[in-house]
Amino acid sequence: MRIVVTNCNTTQGMTEEIVRGARAAAGPGTTVTGLTPAWGPESAEGWLDSYLSAAAVLDTLRTYGEPYDAVVMAGFGEHGREGARELVDVPVVDITEAAAHLACLLGRRYGVVTTLERSRGQIQDSLDAAGVGRNCAAIVGTGLGVLDLADADRTTRAFLAAGQRARDAGAEVLVLGCAGMTGLQRTVGEKLGVPVVDGVGAAVKLAESLVELGLTTSRVGGYAKPLPKRRSWGAAGPAAPGSGG
Amino acid sequence: MRIVVTNCNTTQGMTEEIVRGARAAAGPGTTVTGLTPAWGPESAEGWLDSYLSAAAVLDTLRTYGEPYDAVVMAGFGEHGREGARELVDVPVVDITEAAAHLACLLGRRYGVVTTLERSRGQIQDSLDAAGVGRNCAAIVGTGLGVLDLADADRTTRAFLAAGQRARDAGAEVLVLGCAGMTGLQRTVGEKLGVPVVDGVGAAVKLAESLVELGLTTSRVGGYAKPLPKRRSWGAAGPAAPGSGG
Amino acid sequence: MRIVVTNCNTTQGMTEEIVRGARAAAGPGTTVTGLTPAWGPESAEGWLDSYLSAAAVLDTLRTYGEPYDAVVMAGFGEHGREGARELVDVPVVDITEAAAHLACLLGRRYGVVTTLERSRGQIQDSLDAAGVGRNCAAIVGTGLGVLDLADADRTTRAFLAAGQRARDAGAEVLVLGCAGMTGLQRTVGEKLGVPVVDGVGAAVKLAESLVELGLTTSRVGGYAKPLPKRRSWGAAGPAAPGSGG
Amino acid sequence: MRIVVTNCNTTQGMTEEIVRGARAAAGPGTTVTGLTPAWGPESAEGWLDSYLSAAAVLDTLRTYGEPYDAVVMAGFGEHGREGARELVDVPVVDITEAAAHLACLLGRRYGVVTTLERSRGQIQDSLDAAGVGRNCAAIVGTGLGVLDLADADRTTRAFLAAGQRARDAGAEVLVLGCAGMTGLQRTVGEKLGVPVVDGVGAAVKLAESLVELGLTTSRVGGYAKPLPKRRSWGAAGPAAPGSGG
Amino acid sequence: MRIVVTNCNTTQGMTEEIVRGARAAAGPGTTVTGLTPAWGPESAEGWLDSYLSAAAVLDTLRTYGEPYDAVVMAGFGEHGREGARELVDVPVVDITEAAAHLACLLGRRYGVVTTLERSRGQIQDSLDAAGVGRNCAAIVGTGLGVLDLADADRTTRAFLAAGQRARDAGAEVLVLGCAGMTGLQRTVGEKLGVPVVDGVGAAVKLAESLVELGLTTSRVGGYAKPLPKRRSWGAAGPAAPGSGG
Amino acid sequence: MRIVVTNCNTTQGMTEEIVRGARAAAGPGTTVTGLTPAWGPESAEGWLDSYLSAAAVLDTLRTYGEPYDAVVMAGFGEHGREGARELVDVPVVDITEAAAHLACLLGRRYGVVTTLERSRGQIQDSLDAAGVGRNCAAIVGTGLGVLDLADADRTTRAFLAAGQRARDAGAEVLVLGCAGMTGLQRTVGEKLGVPVVDGVGAAVKLAESLVELGLTTSRVGGYAKPLPKRRSWGAAGPAAPGSGG
Repeated sequence: MRIVVTNCNTTQGMTEEIVRGARAAAGPGTTVTGLTPAWGPESAEGWLDSYLSAAAVLDTLRTYGEPYDAVVMAGFGEHGREGARELVDVPVVDITEAAAHLACLLGRRYGVVTTLERSRGQIQDSLDAAGVGRNCAAIVGTGLGVLDLADADRTTRAFLAAGQRARDAGAEVLVLGCAGMTGLQRTVGEKLGVPVVDGVGAAVKLAESLVELGLTTSRVGGYAKPLPKRRSWGAAGPAAPGSGG
Repeated sequence: MRIVVTNCNTTQGMTEEIVRGARAAAGPGTTVTGLTPAWGPESAEGWLDSYLSAAAVLDTLRTYGEPYDAVVMAGFGEHGREGARELVDVPVVDITEAAAHLACLLGRRYGVVTTLERSRGQIQDSLDAAGVGRNCAAIVGTGLGVLDLADADRTTRAFLAAGQRARDAGAEVLVLGCAGMTGLQRTVGEKLGVPVVDGVGAAVKLAESLVELGLTTSRVGGYAKPLPKRRSWGAAGPAAPGSGG
Repeated sequence: MRIVVTNCNTTQGMTEEIVRGARAAAGPGTTVTGLTPAWGPESAEGWLDSYLSAAAVLDTLRTYGEPYDAVVMAGFGEHGREGARELVDVPVVDITEAAAHLACLLGRRYGVVTTLERSRGQIQDSLDAAGVGRNCAAIVGTGLGVLDLADADRTTRAFLAAGQRARDAGAEVLVLGCAGMTGLQRTVGEKLGVPVVDGVGAAVKLAESLVELGLTTSRVGGYAKPLPKRRSWGAAGPAAPGSGG
Repeated sequence: MRIVVTNCNTTQGMTEEIVRGARAAAGPGTTVTGLTPAWGPESAEGWLDSYLSAAAVLDTLRTYGEPYDAVVMAGFGEHGREGARELVDVPVVDITEAAAHLACLLGRRYGVVTTLERSRGQIQDSLDAAGVGRNCAAIVGTGLGVLDLADADRTTRAFLAAGQRARDAGAEVLVLGCAGMTGLQRTVGEKLGVPVVDGVGAAVKLAESLVELGLTTSRVGGYAKPLPKRRSWGAAGPAAPGSGG
Repeated sequence: MRIVVTNCNTTQGMTEEIVRGARAAAGPGTTVTGLTPAWGPESAEGWLDSYLSAAAVLDTLRTYGEPYDAVVMAGFGEHGREGARELVDVPVVDITEAAAHLACLLGRRYGVVTTLERSRGQIQDSLDAAGVGRNCAAIVGTGLGVLDLADADRTTRAFLAAGQRARDAGAEVLVLGCAGMTGLQRTVGEKLGVPVVDGVGAAVKLAESLVELGLTTSRVGGYAKPLPKRRSWGAAGPAAPGSGG
Repeated sequence: MRIVVTNCNTTQGMTEEIVRGARAAAGPGTTVTGLTPAWGPESAEGWLDSYLSAAAVLDTLRTYGEPYDAVVMAGFGEHGREGARELVDVPVVDITEAAAHLACLLGRRYGVVTTLERSRGQIQDSLDAAGVGRNCAAIVGTGLGVLDLADADRTTRAFLAAGQRARDAGAEVLVLGCAGMTGLQRTVGEKLGVPVVDGVGAAVKLAESLVELGLTTSRVGGYAKPLPKRRSWGAAGPAAPGSGG
């Protein structure tokens, strides 16, 4: 089985890290290919980044020529999931929903530990739309930006503190709230004494499950195929770093 | 990996059918063992049956001496799931929640097609508690009892009619609402033009996923281990068939 | 009027205490009979106990030969209520819902003070299913086990501390969250300055009300009579105390 | 025990009918006194009438000089309940909530059959605020005005038709959605095959229950006593019938 | 355009202050007329006051003879809104809902800072019924009575403290929770670093918007015109100050 | 006051139509400028189009050099709203939420009549996130594509049929569910006998209201300014019409 994993930003190193996490979870017959958008934000932090990322990831999928059996979208709380379901004929699993689906099987209430506080709203909306928001007890920010996660010690310390706040709010299971946290689940899970779910691994297993069961997205209703029409995918050229958008 | 599948009733033939469905879904390294409760109802249809079934299934798990890596509970809408999570140290997945989790990945709204109308309330409560009730558009009864499902033609016809009602209520994906329907998903899915999820297969894949990711039930909060105490598991002897309970 | 009160565990002394509470609330023409299950857990603390208790209580009702006009189920947050409604032809009132129904009449928000933290989830689910969860502001554990309640001073102190937490969360009325707390309502109510509702007394009054109004459970839909079929009620013999279930 | 029943309108004949219904439900030691507001609408049908009625009923209670042990407010879906809880030191039970509380004990979902379609919104809001709206499956109008209910045959026919619509929407129990329907519960219940709850009787039993248990409204939070201040209760003189308000 | 602003209490000075706030917000072609009820409470604080106020305000509107294009109801969390929609043929906007509607456009979650804690329940119910309760993160009391607001410094200090509590609960925008706070928005907004919405100004702009778009209340369903019937509006004469209601 | 109105698609003629609708609603001192994205879909119908549109509209705003006082986003149910709130320092109002906010003031329940059935999910999510989904009784499709709306007669007929379905579901007010329907509100409102709200006009009035009250988006929490970072806005060159995305 061939799974394509889309990074939500243009940082190639993060794609590689995500692919490592995906491969660690994949079954023996599964190959994982990482895709990095050719455009978009270097990290997705906030609504503007998220919408830009959504279009860039859809463009990446639209123009990817190789065959594959499933898509894993590796942007935690980022937009685009439903568009990918319209676009491709194979199952699409987003790491946000995937982590929540498995977390629901492990405890009555789960919590999400994410990067910046500003991402909490997007995550909540994404969980609600995916139908798994009910048992989410808390979404807690660590205060770290996506690219700060490279500092492993600092990330671990921040995660433990935020995880404790989620537990105080009733979470019995934690979810890593950023693709860039993949790999952290074992370290912090032991220290906090609760299961910790990594969305990348969760999404790979769910994608494999759907493929093996012969299931794919319904074309009835919400996720009908895109209508044929004229679409153009973006302006040419990058914005200068630091510009107001 | 060794998965134990518990039937919710005492009908051995139904256990065998469920095990066939589970094996069809299981990965190459997975062995499936079916357990039939030594007591309980011959079919679970309604609240009284469901509570009796829950205790009998927990007793079955409690006294089962072989090692295993995960439990699949094959009673759609039946009670007991949370008790099993307390009791055993391995992941527990119930077919009700499992089908709903996968259905959420395939469309915006799903519907459940079940046996008797009287079961609808239990299913709704079970989905809500599992945290996946939000995107359930309808739970529709076929009017068939659990043991009537042996008649395949009648079952197919009844399912198609009920499935259409679920689609009219907004369902884009359907769920087989009884373990005894396992195998029906391919036939009816093609005819209705929507993905149809079998809970037995879904639960097997989710159980495998949790085991492969090294995840198991949280002991923090709701699913702490049962306290040591005096418990006795039932009176001796069957009730006469047809008695008022 | 004859009311049968079912204890949810096998501890005869607790049945007696519950019966005392029920009799204190009952009208002059009401007789109260306590039933202790012949099997089940010696106290119900958690999901496994609750499902075992549900089956044992249903078996107790099923095999009770005397006539009666209503059933009060005295397990706070324990399962079984809907099964009893199917089984018997007279009104069934559970102490969990009963306390909440009356509490809703006394303030905008109520809180539940219960035994162990682990019971909170069951209570919440039970209130939601009963249709009275909306105005519940908090469910707070005292940390005391069911059998610890025999120590009255310790219970009072723990209740006052937990009750304060419920008030801080917005509760204007408190509910005794365990049948074994019956009698405590007067002491702690005065100290906390809020009405405190005992579920046993509440359920007795609601059962009397239904009987006097000539009302009983609807047979349409969810609570139709159990279908005649083969059911057996449990294995023979007790588990050793302290076993893993 | 002395229960005061407040009619929500100025029609003395309706007060008498309500008092008959209340007395039929009251226990042997209970006396029932009906109060008719000295001002307000001759029937309450819609929001304007409801707010006018609320003030008039509160004025009636405020100026009533005799002692009593509980108040039953007999305006289905009408406002004022929380104000009465602030005003008097004894339990206050409104027939809207009372009927719903008992209906929840008799089936998984209940329906309300009321007079005009325009009243449906008020009833829904009242049930929600009382904390018992969750299990309400439908609120159905008969198209009859409050004062049309004097025609018993027409009322019965209209109720049966509306009751069937409520059942189709999932109601397993019905509630009489107007104080003026009191007495209808037996006739229509038999014909529809479901329990039918009269709010007047239900409120009397709940008021008796609270009094017998020694419970009254919490003064903590929402229902603190009214602050001493200058209040005047209405202008002098009636509006001409048929005026635009 | 002529906007009538109804004060919810009989305190003429507060009407004047509200009218000043309304005029500050009104467009150049808008005239604002304040109406003070001839009866009712001197300030509305709690449910009893609120229902009395609702009837008095409706009576004020009913008997006001001048033409106007829209009504602004200036009682935060007070009842009566839906009755006014039935009564008059022009748009009716209540300051509670108005503030919330605009607040929703300015941040993901808003908070309300009001006078006494006891008003919180009414405000919550009012926001829910208006359809804008979902994004309300907190309703916080300052502990000040309505007539205490004349002390500007004390009001500011109390608002800042309560506003901080609302922000801690997730509010990104604040709402002045009493008509008597109008004018405070600029001072406290700067100090708290968040937008602060005054309901009086918000309601004026929404009323102007509806009038300019040619929109008025639907007569279909809930807000049909009041039926012609006999209604009388209150008893004669004031209650002594300090009486129990 | 200068309001910028962003079309969500690249069809210049639709921008012009929207600008006409906006100008018809705008106050005398307001100038309206329409912006057509330089890239994106020629019409937005479904999730893929919506995410592509969101990025294109944000890019349009990001690169627009003229000063303005508010933004109206004219894509009904389309994404991007929260990103624009982060990006610009002036108020942003989306026509979806705007129509719903005003509709809530005109009746207890409103309905949306939109183009294709497939758009219903996006609209529901958008209303929920905006905090105004509670009182939405129905979202009904006409079956017409966005570019079909040019045929006025067919559009009117389809709207009337769909509007009737919304009314049957309880809607007392209707909302035009597509920017391309602007202008239709008067014709169909009269025929259906209910107020019909056009989102473009509603958003213009709400934007004017916020500007006149001196209010703009909160920077606390969800809508903080975008972080400075490297972002690139799209690939070069259009896709061929009719391609699979």
